Amino acid sequence: MAEEWATFGSDLHLDLHGPGLRTGLMDALREAVRSGRLEAGVRLPSSRSLAADLGIARNTVADAYAELVAEGWLTARQGSGTRVAQRSVPRRPATGSGGRPATPAARRARARPTYDLKPGMPDLASFPRAEWLKASRRALTAAPHEAFGYGDPRGRIELRTVLAEYLARARGVHARPERIVLCSGFVHGLRLMGEVLRAGGPPTSSGRRGRVREVAVESYGLEEHWALLTRAGLRLPALPYDELGTRTEGLAGMKGVGAVLMTAAHQFPLGGALHPDRRVAAIDWARSSGGFVLEDDYDGEFRYDRQPVGALQGLDPERVVYLGTASKSLAPGLRLGWMVVPESLVDEVVEAKGHMDWTGSALDQLTFAEFLGSGAYDRHVRAMRLRYRRRRDELVAAVAAHSPRTRVSGIAAGLHAVLELPAGQEQEVLRSAAWQGLAVLGLNRFRHPDAAPTHDGLVVGYATPPDSAWSGALAALCRVLPA
Amino acid sequence: MAEEWATFGSDLHLDLHGPGLRTGLMDALREAVRSGRLEAGVRLPSSRSLAADLGIARNTVADAYAELVAEGWLTARQGSGTRVAQRSVPRRPATGSGGRPATPAARRARARPTYDLKPGMPDLASFPRAEWLKASRRALTAAPHEAFGYGDPRGRIELRTVLAEYLARARGVHARPERIVLCSGFVHGLRLMGEVLRAGGPPTSSGRRGRVREVAVESYGLEEHWALLTRAGLRLPALPYDELGTRTEGLAGMKGVGAVLMTAAHQFPLGGALHPDRRVAAIDWARSSGGFVLEDDYDGEFRYDRQPVGALQGLDPERVVYLGTASKSLAPGLRLGWMVVPESLVDEVVEAKGHMDWTGSALDQLTFAEFLGSGAYDRHVRAMRLRYRRRRDELVAAVAAHSPRTRVSGIAAGLHAVLELPAGQEQEVLRSAAWQGLAVLGLNRFRHPDAAPTHDGLVVGYATPPDSAWSGALAALCRVLPA
Repeated sequence: MAEEWATFGSDLHLDLHGPGLRTGLMDALREAVRSGRLEAGVRLPSSRSLAADLGIARNTVADAYAELVAEGWLTARQGSGTRVAQRSVPRRPATGSGGRPATPAARRARARPTYDLKPGMPDLASFPRAEWLKASRRALTAAPHEAFGYGDPRGRIELRTVLAEYLARARGVHARPERIVLCSGFVHGLRLMGEVLRAGGPPTSSGRRGRVREVAVESYGLEEHWALLTRAGLRLPALPYDELGTRTEGLAGMKGVGAVLMTAAHQFPLGGALHPDRRVAAIDWARSSGGFVLEDDYDGEFRYDRQPVGALQGLDPERVVYLGTASKSLAPGLRLGWMVVPESLVDEVVEAKGHMDWTGSALDQLTFAEFLGSGAYDRHVRAMRLRYRRRRDELVAAVAAHSPRTRVSGIAAGLHAVLELPAGQEQEVLRSAAWQGLAVLGLNRFRHPDAAPTHDGLVVGYATPPDSAWSGALAALCRVLPA
Repeated sequence: MAEEWATFGSDLHLDLHGPGLRTGLMDALREAVRSGRLEAGVRLPSSRSLAADLGIARNTVADAYAELVAEGWLTARQGSGTRVAQRSVPRRPATGSGGRPATPAARRARARPTYDLKPGMPDLASFPRAEWLKASRRALTAAPHEAFGYGDPRGRIELRTVLAEYLARARGVHARPERIVLCSGFVHGLRLMGEVLRAGGPPTSSGRRGRVREVAVESYGLEEHWALLTRAGLRLPALPYDELGTRTEGLAGMKGVGAVLMTAAHQFPLGGALHPDRRVAAIDWARSSGGFVLEDDYDGEFRYDRQPVGALQGLDPERVVYLGTASKSLAPGLRLGWMVVPESLVDEVVEAKGHMDWTGSALDQLTFAEFLGSGAYDRHVRAMRLRYRRRRDELVAAVAAHSPRTRVSGIAAGLHAVLELPAGQEQEVLRSAAWQGLAVLGLNRFRHPDAAPTHDGLVVGYATPPDSAWSGALAALCRVLPA
């Protein structure tokens, strides 16, 4: 229970001063009851211990308990503590999964290696098909006729409205619906930003924002993203990396740089969270130089051991472009992404997006709005977090047992871990992995060409394999690690 | 509350059309709060019910609410709806289109109803919601897990397979699934082709395809499409037009031209079908010059008086890029389009599309595959064809009765007609249409800047108005036509 409460605590990104704290906690408790995760009669932790788990004031928890008792969700009785009230909504049915008729695509998929531990993909078998269909029924029923027409280039207001509320609650993002621009995933958003930065701002009373020619990137990242910005005509100097994360204080010395691309909450692939000083340094740089931080919050929902690290965007919504997607939390196939854009850039982003034809499917946007607004999204994320956390723990245990000298890092969050290898062994391990039919990637393929090598390693994505293949994948991985 | 809001609605004087509507609604709500007519804490009606009271789109109300929340006039909290803020002081001055005070002229214009007879939009009220939901249930059930992952950049094979059959059967297109590339609508496809043509071909054994610098276009067309190609760095010489259609034989003399954009089956907006000789001339030019025809088959399904005119692509699949969408036959909001690409261009189009992130929603693609494969699409198109044909006949009859000298042309197909006006009367008719609150477009706004004027006219889209507004729209149209 304790560990479950620790995870439960991490469902909330709580502003430890704001009034949203108590209501956020209450929402989360209601959801836990609704979803059946807290069953009728279950005794809740004392306000003191939950307050400690969450690192918040005990009175806040006590108040939330009291209000939920008043609302009938909980009962409080002398001596028996606070419990979930007897009348409670039945647990939602499990979502569909298991054997599907094999399509050509499915048959092609089998041609892939036996075990897939490449990072970047969630567990596709867990897509909540039944809940999604419910949401799309509601969306199709409620949609006004004009929803089927050419839409607002920012995307449907219904989704932007619930997203603003969700991002504020879950990620500490300062979002207003009119500053959210929906896109078809992170890469679409990054393409748009590349265009906007490269083009420079239109003339305004306060002058004209110059064309950006350089975007600083982290020492480790995704080559595809760098290639995309390079094609947009941008140079990409790399920022050094140390145990506190990317050395953003270096930005002050990089004169040509007009923006920086960062995975602040969970560096990809190394897995660390950017140190608070470094977060502040990035924002200070942006403010003083008029630059922008492009925040790639690719798996912000999946934090296991403590409260989620809030988005950098919360520190200065006018200097940070926040980019998020449903690709890790739900599925890449939805092609649902969102940007929270500084007010000064909204018009340019919309212009780059194209006025009518890049909105993406209105029906998917309305369905996701229902899915998010109904709490189904929070339930799904919580369920997946427990599932991924279990896999992470199994990975760590297996590696410790079979390869005690191999250090596993970057495991506090996300869907992947880094296994550090003795210097010079990466290629050899990858070769034997290939022999084992194990698809896994080396750390150095994620290193920026200009960045100094730190160490060899494997980047292991533990979310992808179906349950049936998980233990086999783990065994294959252990076989290729140094004993 | 209901009557109260009905009254509130009734003394809002709104221009029921365009962005002015949201602005007007916001002004009225701000005024009601300022004047104290809406007191702090008062709960506003849901966007749906206010929209119903006012007879406007729900999205417009939701958008206005969202912006007023952002400005601090209203508050929106999960569960407690939208209320007048306790301290209704704007947090920040209204910006952009959101809070712009309506001009006196706009206020005057608001008293009158508006009928929308602009071309380019199908009847959104007829979207087959129930059938679509059935298809998406089947799609969600049958989809293999990998369908939720990153897909083939060309789009789901299931949809490309049924599309290939459909396009061959219904449009005479030579299509193979591996040469179909799904996109998010015609404009997306045209953007991709602009990039590909401008970039030129990669070196091959047979040499390198040169960079295209000029794309010939028809004398009449959509400015948005021309602007898009111009932004891609292309010059757009116009081909003359006569009673046989666009004079494609002229292409032979245009040395710099590497491609031609055509609406061969149903010229937009003039409405004629390209004469067979001109079709052959276009293909001959492409073959001899190594150029390409970009065929915009925007409403090929809607032919009323005889067999549909087959796609030009059938004449030479290696020289024609066929572009089609579900935007006219179903709804633009689906953002579903497709290209049938010459084999020599597939790789470049895929490259331009971006390898993983432009596929669009896999679920929508699978749903449309079910919708198409089950015959629901054919049934829907047949039903809409009868409906649109009836409207066309009513339009022709009404014009004949009220304005016998006005010739109606381009009526053999599609969702719009051209009403020819006596020379010099177009602007005057448009002015009185505006005065009648009738939204309709003049023919000359579709004329290429370099093309010689042919005649004045109105381009009337007869698909858009809901049934309730159709007779009123017709009456308003007849009032503005010369007697």
